[in-house]
Amino acid sequence: MTHRAGRHFLQLPGPTQVPERVSQAMNRSVIDHRGPEFAEMVLGLFDGLKWVFGDPAHVFIFPSSATGCWESALANILSPGDRVLLWNNGFFASKWGDVGRALGRRMEVIDGDWRRPADPERIAARLAADRERRIRAVLVVHNETSTGVTSDIAAVRDALDRARHPALLMVDAVSSLAATPYRQAEWGVDVTVCGSQKGLMLPPGLGFCAVSEKALARHRAGPGTPHSYFDWTAMLGENEGGTFPYTPPTTLLYGLEASLSMLREEGAEATFARHARHAEATRRAVAAWGLRNYCQDPAAVSSAGTTVMVGEGEDAEAFRLAVLERFDMSLGTGLGPLRGKVFRIGHLGDLNELTMMGALAGVEMGLRTSGIAHAPGGLSAAADFLAAT
Amino acid sequence: MTHRAGRHFLQLPGPTQVPERVSQAMNRSVIDHRGPEFAEMVLGLFDGLKWVFGDPAHVFIFPSSATGCWESALANILSPGDRVLLWNNGFFASKWGDVGRALGRRMEVIDGDWRRPADPERIAARLAADRERRIRAVLVVHNETSTGVTSDIAAVRDALDRARHPALLMVDAVSSLAATPYRQAEWGVDVTVCGSQKGLMLPPGLGFCAVSEKALARHRAGPGTPHSYFDWTAMLGENEGGTFPYTPPTTLLYGLEASLSMLREEGAEATFARHARHAEATRRAVAAWGLRNYCQDPAAVSSAGTTVMVGEGEDAEAFRLAVLERFDMSLGTGLGPLRGKVFRIGHLGDLNELTMMGALAGVEMGLRTSGIAHAPGGLSAAADFLAAT
Repeated sequence: MTHRAGRHFLQLPGPTQVPERVSQAMNRSVIDHRGPEFAEMVLGLFDGLKWVFGDPAHVFIFPSSATGCWESALANILSPGDRVLLWNNGFFASKWGDVGRALGRRMEVIDGDWRRPADPERIAARLAADRERRIRAVLVVHNETSTGVTSDIAAVRDALDRARHPALLMVDAVSSLAATPYRQAEWGVDVTVCGSQKGLMLPPGLGFCAVSEKALARHRAGPGTPHSYFDWTAMLGENEGGTFPYTPPTTLLYGLEASLSMLREEGAEATFARHARHAEATRRAVAAWGLRNYCQDPAAVSSAGTTVMVGEGEDAEAFRLAVLERFDMSLGTGLGPLRGKVFRIGHLGDLNELTMMGALAGVEMGLRTSGIAHAPGGLSAAADFLAAT
Repeated sequence: MTHRAGRHFLQLPGPTQVPERVSQAMNRSVIDHRGPEFAEMVLGLFDGLKWVFGDPAHVFIFPSSATGCWESALANILSPGDRVLLWNNGFFASKWGDVGRALGRRMEVIDGDWRRPADPERIAARLAADRERRIRAVLVVHNETSTGVTSDIAAVRDALDRARHPALLMVDAVSSLAATPYRQAEWGVDVTVCGSQKGLMLPPGLGFCAVSEKALARHRAGPGTPHSYFDWTAMLGENEGGTFPYTPPTTLLYGLEASLSMLREEGAEATFARHARHAEATRRAVAAWGLRNYCQDPAAVSSAGTTVMVGEGEDAEAFRLAVLERFDMSLGTGLGPLRGKVFRIGHLGDLNELTMMGALAGVEMGLRTSGIAHAPGGLSAAADFLAAT
């Protein structure tokens, strides 16, 4: 193996760069997860998580990927055969639907345009037509990581309210949390699913279910699917004392403590503004290159990642591999039907302007060396924007 | 907070001390889990894990606790209503039974003596009586972490063979793996469940299901429970190329790579002999103190941890807390019905003679300061044994 000088650019919309402070926090001896020091830390984590999610009743932490929490959300509330409405506008939304079907839910999928956000009007119409109130939950992905399209969750809540429909609102905020405003209580979200390796700047390994009182009440009332690991009752009982029903991933929790401190120190508004600026710089570069943003709605562009289309007959996958080989940068792949047609630039997590510019330089030079048709000037457009604001 | 000089003694039978080499391996940047470097590492991990488990057909790695893999074992093969025979001789065996019931399995529990290992004769008799072959699986805990009792898995296999019973054999090797010999293929074990934070010397956060070809065939043939996260089919399909169906916990996998290298370098026989010696030193100390080992079968004493009884009217929990406070050492608590009646000394994982002696010194001094009735001389007995062998 040849030594590659300098730092790898992990420019995915997750997993994101783990800041040195988080790495160092995790590089600490494991302690007894049933001892007093551990419990004190855990109770502090719940406070911090409630702040990040926007005041849910509780945030469950599972040793799992975020996809595990898709299952937790569905298994703890809904029963086999229950009807669930899913807005499908991307790879991850469609995977959440697969999980629902695996658990025996009756998934009613609205196949939305992948290049656009969820349409509250269509959701409201579907709910209004459900006169017998059979739909038990509405599932929406806040930021679709595969497409770089952000949906308006407050507007979806409003659609439920206008239809006076009692369905629970469940949101995947995996790549939006801590990148763009999220207000669980204000938006009336009942379950928010998230993971550790995105805006929270941790390695993968923790999944989160942030839940409302209404969701907890439904859980207590309903039979759910037969399950154990992702169960809320056992978890909630232990969490009250700062413990878990099974051994939690100690070192990742140390990292979470550090990342929550860092987010508080930066301040939520500053974190969101930083993400928005890097996203705008990226979009200006893409536009200057003459490439198309996959997202067609200017009001729904993502602060976490930009999905960029290549031309007919060009191979985004070959481009991505060439960039990895030549410039030591990982860009996001095209997922599902988008494979080979797009690449994704992550601007999520612990990122500053110069790293962002380095990443865009890697894209611009990669476009040149890979023979992808483009105009020059993307880098300058991004620098102009960042320097002027 | 006052500074406490020196290193905390984490003397649990898991989580165990994470060696510096593993910590440093984990303290490395996250890479793209869909890139070539990651896949190469993962394929190497599967090789190493097969070696540790004793040649199963495949080892699934889940981002979960080991208890998650109890669920994975039951959900992927057996259907609701299926009959499962469980030998219950400890806290963790009984918890595995709870998971089975939560998944709708018909748990047939043999309530064994918690102070003794599984009795192959009783298992053979129960299987012989099952003339209609309704029992689909037999569940046994190899080393019961709560009691310090190790069962003979080869003898349990022999019981199944003598009864010519087709039930699958599922074993919890959470605290035995890499501490005491384990031979999945030779013993005809179909599913072995394990976790990362014990003999593998990692922080908690990874669960393992090591499976036989027979277990995979049953999985392919049967309906299972509705589930998704712990599914074997999706996982196996991805694992063949060194990937996962969802984002894996990258840093823990870095640590696993290091710990597998360390185990290979020490050599399996040396690792087992080291554990056996520390366990014997601990038992000699316990005997010299005049305290009783909870395990009543000298052939079944555990290499991973020793469960020590205190006298009537004495409080093991107060003793444990006093040792934590005064000597900065975590001993294992008494679990379930054993709470307050026993404490547990872990001698599992990355441990040498001097740390072992320091831990036993903490116990001896703690017994003195806590007023637990005991004779002096435990430390010397342990030192005599270690120095002479």
